[in-house]
Amino acid sequence: MSHTVVARLQDALGASVTTDPDALEATRDDRSGWRSASLPIAVVLATSVDEVQAVMRIAHATGTPVVPRGAGTGLAGGAIASPGAIVLDLSRMNRVLEISDADELAVVEPGVLNGDLNDLLAARGLWFAPDPASRAISSIGGNIATNAGGLLCAKYGVTREAVLGLAVVLADGRLLRTGHRTVKGVTGYDLTALLTGSEGTLGVIVEATVRLRPIMPGATVTVAGVFADVDGAAAASAAVTAARLRPAVLELIDAAGLARVAAHLGDDELAGTPLATLAPGETFLLAQTDGAGAADEAAAIAARFAAAGGRVSTSTDDATGDRLLDIRRAMHPALAASGNVLIEDVAVPRSRLPEMFREIEQIGARHGIEIPTLAHAGDGNLHPNFVYTGDEVPPHIWQAADEMFRAAVALGGTLTGEHGVGVLKRRWLADELGDDSFELQRGIKALFDPTGILNPGVMFEASAPAPR
Amino acid sequence: MSHTVVARLQDALGASVTTDPDALEATRDDRSGWRSASLPIAVVLATSVDEVQAVMRIAHATGTPVVPRGAGTGLAGGAIASPGAIVLDLSRMNRVLEISDADELAVVEPGVLNGDLNDLLAARGLWFAPDPASRAISSIGGNIATNAGGLLCAKYGVTREAVLGLAVVLADGRLLRTGHRTVKGVTGYDLTALLTGSEGTLGVIVEATVRLRPIMPGATVTVAGVFADVDGAAAASAAVTAARLRPAVLELIDAAGLARVAAHLGDDELAGTPLATLAPGETFLLAQTDGAGAADEAAAIAARFAAAGGRVSTSTDDATGDRLLDIRRAMHPALAASGNVLIEDVAVPRSRLPEMFREIEQIGARHGIEIPTLAHAGDGNLHPNFVYTGDEVPPHIWQAADEMFRAAVALGGTLTGEHGVGVLKRRWLADELGDDSFELQRGIKALFDPTGILNPGVMFEASAPAPR
Repeated sequence: MSHTVVARLQDALGASVTTDPDALEATRDDRSGWRSASLPIAVVLATSVDEVQAVMRIAHATGTPVVPRGAGTGLAGGAIASPGAIVLDLSRMNRVLEISDADELAVVEPGVLNGDLNDLLAARGLWFAPDPASRAISSIGGNIATNAGGLLCAKYGVTREAVLGLAVVLADGRLLRTGHRTVKGVTGYDLTALLTGSEGTLGVIVEATVRLRPIMPGATVTVAGVFADVDGAAAASAAVTAARLRPAVLELIDAAGLARVAAHLGDDELAGTPLATLAPGETFLLAQTDGAGAADEAAAIAARFAAAGGRVSTSTDDATGDRLLDIRRAMHPALAASGNVLIEDVAVPRSRLPEMFREIEQIGARHGIEIPTLAHAGDGNLHPNFVYTGDEVPPHIWQAADEMFRAAVALGGTLTGEHGVGVLKRRWLADELGDDSFELQRGIKALFDPTGILNPGVMFEASAPAPR
Repeated sequence: MSHTVVARLQDALGASVTTDPDALEATRDDRSGWRSASLPIAVVLATSVDEVQAVMRIAHATGTPVVPRGAGTGLAGGAIASPGAIVLDLSRMNRVLEISDADELAVVEPGVLNGDLNDLLAARGLWFAPDPASRAISSIGGNIATNAGGLLCAKYGVTREAVLGLAVVLADGRLLRTGHRTVKGVTGYDLTALLTGSEGTLGVIVEATVRLRPIMPGATVTVAGVFADVDGAAAASAAVTAARLRPAVLELIDAAGLARVAAHLGDDELAGTPLATLAPGETFLLAQTDGAGAADEAAAIAARFAAAGGRVSTSTDDATGDRLLDIRRAMHPALAASGNVLIEDVAVPRSRLPEMFREIEQIGARHGIEIPTLAHAGDGNLHPNFVYTGDEVPPHIWQAADEMFRAAVALGGTLTGEHGVGVLKRRWLADELGDDSFELQRGIKALFDPTGILNPGVMFEASAPAPR
């Protein structure tokens, strides 16, 4: 059967289809630490909407599962090989089809990297705001499929707010267009928003019309604070938001996380920064302000940091700001360098951030593990990280993650703020949603994908037992 | 049958049910100019979630249509009596349940008026950004049901972007909760966004958790420009956006609209404003800037207005700014005072605004009618207005509206930017969406409302012929 499917793909798509063992093998993981037990039957490196439609028609006709995959940088196992599946790789569909200065929008293929689009836009004074920490390596299709968050969401919104319209290939190969080239538009239900964050389970994104913004005028100002412990950093963060200050970036790294980053980067990388001389237990809070009031806002933030006991430094040159932000962005690579990492992604109302840090500490203590954590403090999104060795997540880490999820939901939060459910967190989906919502969500899935061929096992448990 | 239904409602809900002829009569229209041919069988003035659930359980058991209704200020006939229906009036559910300063959110019942919430918030330095021109009289439940737009959307987003979570009573009476108290959250499909703008066809909104913003610091600066014709105003608007300026408000009123507003308000209201001495054919463009860079941005805007030939005045006092904005907000009352009004609500990419104005002029000329128009120029949303006398929209006006819709879509735009489809625009829904999207949207409707009792005839044509 799979032989026939591959033959049909090859007939229709020729050289875009590969069954090369290395290519198949490469689709078994992403950046989540999860590793699929299965290989796909083939990888299709699609180069056009027509090719994507051809794949879906063959999959539909043969009942073959399809896993849409972009840059492979997902953190929840949402785009990895599943049993008997075709992996539909969209990374070669990476053309920027249009940039409209007048309408402040771009039309892109899904494989365009977030950072590449922003490089193109900078010369025009424009900017695509969604800013996952992975922007240099993650694709816009994947950003949309996960409704990616990032560092700027409290001020500039999540990916959903930057998506005006989509072209999506449906399970049976039809091409659906949603949305508009306008900021406003309320004709019918908002399928653009429904598809954003749907993790490849409702359709394959083949084109996106995204909203751009003018680059903020003036310099970005960076305020860095080093605190004796996580309570100090959390208190400073709370004081900033209580004062109605709205920095573009407000990132917190706890002591365990900071120690790992510092060790990973080494003394040379940290020389001259406030992190050059860290005492044990110290934590880091990084704010950036932008726009016309950036300097005043930064001064007000620095005062709150100092009042909360921080060692504070403020800089107005971009190089220093970028350097400090790069230290923050090095958190995931630093952890990945020391083992496999299960990244939690809980979000809580930001007022509950100090409580959530205490919960994390207690969970770590109960299980005898260190849980290096960073937080997008402005929006209450935390990434507690579990580092482990070996191919599989050990049971006690799953247990700790389970306690983490339940603590976040009990505080009014959610299982996943920005990474998505994927295969990693599907076990908790129904728990968070409740029966009525879960049933409606299954209904939406069945409406778009009646035969269940789109990314089975992602978000919802597959009907057949999924591999671990 | 309807007798039995009313008896069951009265048994369950007592004094919340009315069949008073005046109360029934009052639900036959909204602010759209559309008038239902039917009376409802009863009006329920619900005061609690329990009561809403009780209504839906009875409706579900008896197959009775239900029309959810808020403040009755809709502009598309989305909440007016339909044949044999219960009108479920939510205007008494108007409590603000919670305001969280720390998390910058409010939890409200659906009947809370937009303006009332903002009055409450002002003392705390907070603000609910969705700003329909009707904010003094429209309810937040209705704002969410229509995904209302308004004057500030280019800078501050549409209503969807301010809704974090909902409580919704489903067609069979179950209570569904969606979303979070956090800015981020990607667990499952985005039902909050799907329900926002669903016009009462998928469920009854009984509670909303909405996102608040800090009030922008500093004074608002207002720039008013009077231009010899609509081309001048449109050129000035295009020059502002091309310069990457981002005013909070950018409103354009054409000559016919301006003449109506001026006549309606009278000389006293206009005295001392730039509109006190209008030459025939003159048009109005109003910008407001806010935040730390407001003064600089206003100066840059004033320069563009002047360069495009405008008579320009700039003011930094709130009283003048409010007065000028009130003149803009008087547009709809001014038209309503002179007859029934069919309000179009097309949106086009803002670069196509001058073309759309030309289309409007040509359509008016073809049909021998004046079409007073205003535009949210910053986001390309236009309200061409058709004033008529008599109970029904005359055929030539429907014909002109049809041409308007097709022109907007041909320019890359949409049938409705912010008012919703309602009964007024359902005839065009499938034309804009196309067959595949229309079919999926019908599927979503059937999933949430399998027996079709929720607001039948709104958005989709009712299976039985709907009254005109």
